[in-house]
Amino acid sequence: MDGGFDYQAFAASQLNDLKDAGNYRYFADLERARGAYPKAENRDGDARRDVSVWCSNDYLGMGQHPDVIAAMHATLDRTGAGAGGTRNISGTTHAHVDLEAELADLHGKQAALLFTSGYVSNWASLGTLAARLPDCVVLSDAGNHASMIEGIRHSRAEKRIFKHNDPEDLERQLASIKPGRPIIVAFESVYSMDGDIAPIAEICDVAERYGAMTYLDEVHAVGLYGPRGGGIAEREGLMDRLTVIEGTLGKAYGVMGGYIAASAEIVDFVRSFASGFIFTTAIPPAVAAGACAAVRHLKTSDVERAAHQARVAEVRGRLDQIGIPHLENDSHIIPVMVGDPNKCRFISDELMRRFGIYIQPINYPTVPKGTERLRITPSPVHSAADIDALVAALEDLWAQCNIARVPLAAQ
Amino acid sequence: MDGGFDYQAFAASQLNDLKDAGNYRYFADLERARGAYPKAENRDGDARRDVSVWCSNDYLGMGQHPDVIAAMHATLDRTGAGAGGTRNISGTTHAHVDLEAELADLHGKQAALLFTSGYVSNWASLGTLAARLPDCVVLSDAGNHASMIEGIRHSRAEKRIFKHNDPEDLERQLASIKPGRPIIVAFESVYSMDGDIAPIAEICDVAERYGAMTYLDEVHAVGLYGPRGGGIAEREGLMDRLTVIEGTLGKAYGVMGGYIAASAEIVDFVRSFASGFIFTTAIPPAVAAGACAAVRHLKTSDVERAAHQARVAEVRGRLDQIGIPHLENDSHIIPVMVGDPNKCRFISDELMRRFGIYIQPINYPTVPKGTERLRITPSPVHSAADIDALVAALEDLWAQCNIARVPLAAQ
Repeated sequence: MDGGFDYQAFAASQLNDLKDAGNYRYFADLERARGAYPKAENRDGDARRDVSVWCSNDYLGMGQHPDVIAAMHATLDRTGAGAGGTRNISGTTHAHVDLEAELADLHGKQAALLFTSGYVSNWASLGTLAARLPDCVVLSDAGNHASMIEGIRHSRAEKRIFKHNDPEDLERQLASIKPGRPIIVAFESVYSMDGDIAPIAEICDVAERYGAMTYLDEVHAVGLYGPRGGGIAEREGLMDRLTVIEGTLGKAYGVMGGYIAASAEIVDFVRSFASGFIFTTAIPPAVAAGACAAVRHLKTSDVERAAHQARVAEVRGRLDQIGIPHLENDSHIIPVMVGDPNKCRFISDELMRRFGIYIQPINYPTVPKGTERLRITPSPVHSAADIDALVAALEDLWAQCNIARVPLAAQ
Repeated sequence: MDGGFDYQAFAASQLNDLKDAGNYRYFADLERARGAYPKAENRDGDARRDVSVWCSNDYLGMGQHPDVIAAMHATLDRTGAGAGGTRNISGTTHAHVDLEAELADLHGKQAALLFTSGYVSNWASLGTLAARLPDCVVLSDAGNHASMIEGIRHSRAEKRIFKHNDPEDLERQLASIKPGRPIIVAFESVYSMDGDIAPIAEICDVAERYGAMTYLDEVHAVGLYGPRGGGIAEREGLMDRLTVIEGTLGKAYGVMGGYIAASAEIVDFVRSFASGFIFTTAIPPAVAAGACAAVRHLKTSDVERAAHQARVAEVRGRLDQIGIPHLENDSHIIPVMVGDPNKCRFISDELMRRFGIYIQPINYPTVPKGTERLRITPSPVHSAADIDALVAALEDLWAQCNIARVPLAAQ
């Protein structure tokens, strides 16, 4: 490379900038212990320590549920490890077909389509719909997840951002669009980092008035809300008003993969035209079977959801008692606001080293600069003793670090 | 939706166009039988039939290898079903760390990075590198896979296409680029649908002369070529001349997932900036452990590679004896050219129904219109009797359908 661009030096310098800003990400090497979760072993060089995980998206502990594990073992033994191809070329197994039927039923839709992840399901579905609907315009909530933003960007359709969770702003913007154009209103039910919940009915009201289709991301809600785990839209009786419901199998359902559920035509359209669906190896049949077991279980069992909500309420109450600031919201996500990347990293490190508590610091670009936080996700598998230990540790660190006990942004 | 755009009708009409052109995709519902692969059960409505799979990318049958299955069972029991979070937020397990080290070693690089799929690894890595290297220009082989094309498109960097496997055209184009600009030369080693192999050394020669970094997709080569399964670049002693080597765990390694291997800085750069890496749930630890077992096994065992090559040579020879046209190439992929989507689909349907042989028709957009084909992938698990049955069935159908026995495009 004779005097050309120095790729190594450029990469190193960009990484140094991240480090200087406190935004460089250090991954914690963890091994959860099946049956003992939230306990896990953390490896740090040669050191090993036992920790309690308080920041996982395995919200209900379904990743260790006996039905899920048994389904995965059985399918692994019956069919082997991988799918062996794309869905079109030898990679569709009966486990995929079963799971898609289960998911369509979950959301009261005609069909569902599996993707390798929730990220890909948003990126590929929005990317395909917005690109192929002629002269489409996408109305995107200001708080939407990166996967939706990238999908819309990829489509090169016109995009307008409406104020977060604000149907009035959405309506103002819709009113200015030429009638007859295809419109997608894309939003989430539970927003992952603040834990706030969308006014789905109001957004549907507005969208319907302007002939827009609605695309709802329920990844932080499926399994957790609604009588059968269909999400916030199910809880509020709104599933039939949404054109597309998108969800994940990697959070409350404890495994991996993403999906959309919609009419037969819309699903078939995405299936037939989405590059990110067509040209990729299908998820392993054992993964599909495990996810299917989790979905089925949570359709009939409400025990996990009830325990989850109780645990969340308890942790919130205990934090309030000692004045630890957390964002108020109506979901299961407890964002404890710190507001500085280095302080956030320091508290997280101290929690791990001194208290055996693992809560990853959430910094930019996952959240805006200045809103760095610890994102606590209580689950039914956290015991009373786990909660006592968490609260005592936070109390100790808040005293030591002189962090504000007044809520920073309890909107 | 008061007189607005009719989403359902639009989707239905686009699907009808696909059907009219013979390009609508019907997925075969299969269940492979572990230990008996290439045998599988095909479900078609209520009908069940036993079939032999001849089009899978589980090229070596590693999806049923005892080491792979055992590693997955053990990890599933030890840690549970899913990773429970993104790599940054509780989703990095020791299985991921181990696998990344194994992959870096496989390619003689300082580091490796896992993605949820090969598609995502190309899309996210090329998308991030091309977008963030200032004023980058990407030289992309005309035959590159959809995942690379979409990643480059997503980056919005300047893109120039060079003639397929043509270092001279690459050089002509590089000569016209202002010196000092960052340049990525992106190409594959084995092209999936024609099975031809890139002149890697010549492409590296040219790239080095112009200070370009090289990005090589080895998804159809890793595990299959090279003394340790490092791919064509390993076989030809060229791994150190490539800036980035990309591979998959879902084909020869039999499981799922994708990766890149490169210098520590380049890998850390992609790890730190790629949206498609950051904002997605990590692959299940059991999947990582299974893939790791496959990579390890194929680093020391050459039996599978030798048997694979022998079986491919045998099938090619037998097809030649009966005049079935197939593209000549130096890889393991045998494209039997049909040249018409409806005829291709008909032959595939007949193979399945009458002969219990499953070979998916490969139509547009996976291959250009007019080059529709059956893509046959022999593997070490196909027996002499399987080959006899395949050849007899093709001979019967070629006679029945009056398809040309002269090679259509034996370039």
